[in-house]
Amino acid sequence: MLGNFSYCNPTKLYFGKGAIGYLKEELPKYGKNVVLIYGGGSVKKNGIYDEALRLLREAGKNVAEIAGVMPNPTLEKLYEGMKIAREHKADFLLAVGGGSVCDYAKALAVSVHCGEDPWEKYYVRFEEPSCEVVPVGCVLTMVGTGSEMNAGAVITNREQKLKIGHVFADEKVMPRFAVLDPTYTFTLPHYQMVAGIYDIFSHICEQYFSGEDDNTSDYLAEGLMRSLLHSSRIANKDMQNYEARSNIMWTATWALNTLISRGKTTDWMVHMLGQAVGAYTDATHGMTLSAVSLAYYRHILPYGMKKFVRFAENVWGVDPAGKSDREIAEAGLSAMEAWMKELGLVMNISELGVTGEMVKDVAGAVLVMQGGYKVLGREEIEAVLAESL
Amino acid sequence: MLGNFSYCNPTKLYFGKGAIGYLKEELPKYGKNVVLIYGGGSVKKNGIYDEALRLLREAGKNVAEIAGVMPNPTLEKLYEGMKIAREHKADFLLAVGGGSVCDYAKALAVSVHCGEDPWEKYYVRFEEPSCEVVPVGCVLTMVGTGSEMNAGAVITNREQKLKIGHVFADEKVMPRFAVLDPTYTFTLPHYQMVAGIYDIFSHICEQYFSGEDDNTSDYLAEGLMRSLLHSSRIANKDMQNYEARSNIMWTATWALNTLISRGKTTDWMVHMLGQAVGAYTDATHGMTLSAVSLAYYRHILPYGMKKFVRFAENVWGVDPAGKSDREIAEAGLSAMEAWMKELGLVMNISELGVTGEMVKDVAGAVLVMQGGYKVLGREEIEAVLAESL
Repeated sequence: MLGNFSYCNPTKLYFGKGAIGYLKEELPKYGKNVVLIYGGGSVKKNGIYDEALRLLREAGKNVAEIAGVMPNPTLEKLYEGMKIAREHKADFLLAVGGGSVCDYAKALAVSVHCGEDPWEKYYVRFEEPSCEVVPVGCVLTMVGTGSEMNAGAVITNREQKLKIGHVFADEKVMPRFAVLDPTYTFTLPHYQMVAGIYDIFSHICEQYFSGEDDNTSDYLAEGLMRSLLHSSRIANKDMQNYEARSNIMWTATWALNTLISRGKTTDWMVHMLGQAVGAYTDATHGMTLSAVSLAYYRHILPYGMKKFVRFAENVWGVDPAGKSDREIAEAGLSAMEAWMKELGLVMNISELGVTGEMVKDVAGAVLVMQGGYKVLGREEIEAVLAESL
Repeated sequence: MLGNFSYCNPTKLYFGKGAIGYLKEELPKYGKNVVLIYGGGSVKKNGIYDEALRLLREAGKNVAEIAGVMPNPTLEKLYEGMKIAREHKADFLLAVGGGSVCDYAKALAVSVHCGEDPWEKYYVRFEEPSCEVVPVGCVLTMVGTGSEMNAGAVITNREQKLKIGHVFADEKVMPRFAVLDPTYTFTLPHYQMVAGIYDIFSHICEQYFSGEDDNTSDYLAEGLMRSLLHSSRIANKDMQNYEARSNIMWTATWALNTLISRGKTTDWMVHMLGQAVGAYTDATHGMTLSAVSLAYYRHILPYGMKKFVRFAENVWGVDPAGKSDREIAEAGLSAMEAWMKELGLVMNISELGVTGEMVKDVAGAVLVMQGGYKVLGREEIEAVLAESL
């Protein structure tokens, strides 16, 4: 841990079958006016909406609703929610859904009393909230983003074709509690499950493939990756396997609650590439990441050789005997590619609707991060995207 | 993660060189009457006491002191502190020291307003606090116990020859913040440094060697162990190596802040054996653990074969080719033994002052835990202790 840092993660997690019952303990801590936030109809079909509403009513809450939060929540939807939350004089926001719904609730939490355009304040100037932050609780129904235990919130500005995440420093933005019931993820389609798994894996990689130092965080990252590989292979064949799905759910939380980035640099270029693809295609987030990852990692491999060798040996069990560093590193990425194909991930951006003609425009929407083994120039971004077609 | 659980760890950590400066941000959050708690003279010699006192005075605090908290804080010392804290009408307790000082501060935090004998309430009946808990902050000067980010507090009852830890469920018992500056650990003698390293390793093992399921927590435990092995070997030769000492400090925090026990069973028999040895000898905690560990693990190995094989391969890199499970597992423990000797740990309890005649008495002071691969009978405890002589 060469860098100085702070760490604080006060979110209380309730994990396991039936954990939603802990709403009975948590809800009395907050005011009467609750806004229940959810996405499409799935939480109504699987009964989670009914159960949450029942517990809210039992706790004597006045409930307003924001329905229809989309996979990449938009600025327009945020404006709509601000109006609802203000009219309802919201004391508490209860998000029931996946990462997008949680992200949306957190963005809303800092926007209700913002006093100016939240896009300008939080997504252009990247400021911290200076107003009252409405407390948020989450009931998680989809796994991947880690949004349930961090202070991040990604919002898409469709007009400007920008999908931007802000990780707030203020712990008040973090959910006060999150309910993690692995059985809630059982009804997800296979496509969404594996997209979530790759999102988790990518979160770990973004924090792992950076820096030259020896850092406890990288050892924790390797542990999370090994657990994820093991459980993803079981869940891929047996989606109802509670143990595998619960390990995946827990791994997702710890992959992106800031722990494994403490004291080190991070990269996040795969997310920047994927988010630009997402802004142009509205494709599932995890699949935008899987579709660009290998081209990116093969591009930066020569600049981060030592880490890619370590990745191959410690995560994929590549036997280094008789191999050059380059061969070991490439064998690691080949093993990763085989695993990705085994899961049925989208392996190129053409499948998501990006054409060769769109590459220049998509490249223009990519924010360039500084933390990776090679800071990409505009031509390199275009080359990586072209390679991902 | 087969078991249901909750997780909440609100302690704010400030990590790195000069992190004590963050007292300026934290102290204004609490009342004026502060009790400064420390151990022997070392914090006075190395200037940390002066710096803490300066920052307390700058923040306008009325400071009382509890000095001389010993390595295994006693019940008598707790009674003494309760008197001081009550007379001072303490609003806040600032612990400056190692795990014993932090433990003591937390025990004091729940005892000041307890209204009855805290030993009876917390260490005999193991109740949660029902009174106001005085908030605690820590400035850590010694690494190992993880006390800076958990709700545990070990107290020794000398009269009854009992050293008992209570891990409180109430998050209010956890330090509100902890300052972790790796350079503060540089002045420790080698003996104390390696004892702390083994304490960390043992904390991880106690949570790892239990259960048959596949659990993300065990993968995180392996990551922490691998990091600790790597950094301990560097620090053993070069005690001033900042990177190694900082990794060790961070590993200690995460080894015992409840993360790696989530969703699984744990054992803690090595600590029960070591604490009984400690109650009879007042020996350094980490050395009481190292002195009993191998005899214990070799005793339970046949009952937890699968985990010991995994430990050998994933932590110690034992090549399984051509070996039976038993041989793989034993090779893992042999590798662990070689590492322990390399660090210069105490390898038997005779060196700590336990004689063959004392074994029966020490065995009588061992609390038997239920979570391990084999629940030990009284004769087995005596056998493990005799083997450790």
